[in-house]
Amino acid sequence: MRSHFAPVSSRAVSSYSPIGPVVGVVGAGQLARMTQQPAIALGVELRVLAAAPDESAARVIVDTRIGDYRDLADLRAFAQGCDAITFDHEHVPTEHIRALAADGVAVRPGADALVHAQDKAVMRERLTSFGAPCPAWARVSGVEDVTRFAAEHGWPVVLKAIRGGYDGRGVWVCHSAADAEVAFESGVPLLAEAFVPFERELAVLVTRSPHGQGVSYPVVETVQRDGICVEVLAPAPGLDPEDAAQAQRIALEIAQKLGVTGLLAVEMFQTAGGMVVNELAMRPHNSGHWTIEGANTSQFEQHLRAVLDLPLGSPAMTAPVVVMANLLGGDDPDLFKRYEHVMAHDPGVKLHFYGKEVRPGRKIGHVTALGDDLETVRARARHAAVYLTTGEYS
Amino acid sequence: MRSHFAPVSSRAVSSYSPIGPVVGVVGAGQLARMTQQPAIALGVELRVLAAAPDESAARVIVDTRIGDYRDLADLRAFAQGCDAITFDHEHVPTEHIRALAADGVAVRPGADALVHAQDKAVMRERLTSFGAPCPAWARVSGVEDVTRFAAEHGWPVVLKAIRGGYDGRGVWVCHSAADAEVAFESGVPLLAEAFVPFERELAVLVTRSPHGQGVSYPVVETVQRDGICVEVLAPAPGLDPEDAAQAQRIALEIAQKLGVTGLLAVEMFQTAGGMVVNELAMRPHNSGHWTIEGANTSQFEQHLRAVLDLPLGSPAMTAPVVVMANLLGGDDPDLFKRYEHVMAHDPGVKLHFYGKEVRPGRKIGHVTALGDDLETVRARARHAAVYLTTGEYS
Repeated sequence: MRSHFAPVSSRAVSSYSPIGPVVGVVGAGQLARMTQQPAIALGVELRVLAAAPDESAARVIVDTRIGDYRDLADLRAFAQGCDAITFDHEHVPTEHIRALAADGVAVRPGADALVHAQDKAVMRERLTSFGAPCPAWARVSGVEDVTRFAAEHGWPVVLKAIRGGYDGRGVWVCHSAADAEVAFESGVPLLAEAFVPFERELAVLVTRSPHGQGVSYPVVETVQRDGICVEVLAPAPGLDPEDAAQAQRIALEIAQKLGVTGLLAVEMFQTAGGMVVNELAMRPHNSGHWTIEGANTSQFEQHLRAVLDLPLGSPAMTAPVVVMANLLGGDDPDLFKRYEHVMAHDPGVKLHFYGKEVRPGRKIGHVTALGDDLETVRARARHAAVYLTTGEYS
Repeated sequence: MRSHFAPVSSRAVSSYSPIGPVVGVVGAGQLARMTQQPAIALGVELRVLAAAPDESAARVIVDTRIGDYRDLADLRAFAQGCDAITFDHEHVPTEHIRALAADGVAVRPGADALVHAQDKAVMRERLTSFGAPCPAWARVSGVEDVTRFAAEHGWPVVLKAIRGGYDGRGVWVCHSAADAEVAFESGVPLLAEAFVPFERELAVLVTRSPHGQGVSYPVVETVQRDGICVEVLAPAPGLDPEDAAQAQRIALEIAQKLGVTGLLAVEMFQTAGGMVVNELAMRPHNSGHWTIEGANTSQFEQHLRAVLDLPLGSPAMTAPVVVMANLLGGDDPDLFKRYEHVMAHDPGVKLHFYGKEVRPGRKIGHVTALGDDLETVRARARHAAVYLTTGEYS
């Protein structure tokens, strides 16, 4: 990755003018890639800041710039000519986002909101301050802090890296001081949270526009394995309408209080005592990929509308049940040969590949099935996912 | 437009390898543009042959090559490294398509099929030979031929340019010899057809794969104004299931007898005496844009599957009624300012802009509404289309 900003695609920079609004996305992973689909429809011209020209989104976005999202000069050059800037990930230094906004760039979400997705301690402080349901928590500097925390709240204690951390990384479930020692070896600032004995994990995906309009998708259930999301069930099966409404209210309130613009994904634990907020993300989210076919307005389109301060679209579902299954790389690099079986076996399943090299355990795509009956739809999504990643017929 | 082939995007050619199959599309209009959406999902890397880098599809496809579709050397260079080649329009000279196939390139549809979409006389001869319902027709060299035809079949007589012609161009409805004189002034070979007093115009969109699998979408009604399609109603309202089945059988038989691979759109007249075939197209078609949101598998995805000889997807509708309204350019070049009203007025309507400069009467986009009730859905699509193109609230 070069730290000196240089445009990769001179064609896009020099030879023609955009016809529609220009939105710059910092980060060229699959979230930016999937944003290109509604951008094409809406006539929005995307620009992406990538580390390399073969990244997931760079393969499908003409105006790709190569640069370093940690370098303010690169970010400034990238933002020139964009009507708005948004993010494919949450690693852009908060101070750089503030600097861009001070320059007059429309950065959505802004730094004041995004910091709550970047810094778990800031997030816990803020949410606690207005009564959003959180587990007991505390900053911890060493093992003694953890032991003290456990004396009050019990083991296990969940230790989390305050910054960084995703897909299960930077999270340690500690059953003892010895476990806590391991976490501190990481050398990064940590937060302690009381372990939440949850019934299941849910996710609420909401959108808020600069105008203040807020829209929520149906609450979904997420299934994790080894800290990575493997399956999403929409809507969350058997969820009491009152509980669903409560979860949506919590998420919309967080979006409004934090001044989020764009998507906000709130991961929650459903517990006997009610909903508990786990984590926040302010970008398109794995728990929302089902919306591409499963909702009138996909999360990617919704995020674009909010980023451009346009009226938000309908979140209505297009089928009674929608299930998404992630594709995590197996040992075989060639997935395309497996298309034939999966497509012949189920003409209705929708396949998504992210244009990424297959590496074991890496998120390389997802599949979505839609229908009337949960068990059937779930089995269809699983069959496709298992076959595509392992070649096994399940 | 340069006739000497030179790659525009050196980045795509030199710096990384494709991860998935590569499909080359000749022609960079909105049909190629809208093919990029499912290509992104399926991990298919598109390459497009464009006349200029700012064309509709070139704006959204990284691997754009600038060249001349009438130049065999440009076509050969373009096809190098593609797993299959297909078309955004039907103007590629038939002999060039044969030459590519002789080189071993997988061109879909092939020349033997595509000639029936390029040459109306060849089409009429072939369809008549196996009993597909056609109007009376004849090649005509001059006005006397037309008068003789009219003596047998009556006025009006429809004269059509045998090659070229689209969106109403190259079609003359003649009520007299004087009218026929005007048609012959065009200087191109003409065909005469008996005027068909139709109840309405329908379209059947089918797909056929190299494996021989055939799938039909529901029959739709198309509404024309000045020879250009303005509205599509899916499914065709009030169409007797027997008539619908007959129309689908006719289209699937044509696809199979002609050896079409990819999409085949059959425009038909519904008459008191049954269905009559009007025109053929072998590419994504205006009468199928509704499928983007309105069917489990869009026509663009279906075409890609067929071109890659993959199993075809489900054509099932996602809502009971789907209406598409075309956006034809008005006098105002700035459509984006009208997004706010249209989106706020109807959060469920889906907007599509083609990244083309607005010119009066030019197809610059379309809108799609979905729902339960035809009149409501139709009014929603119309309201959005009228407002976007004229700023008038209807």
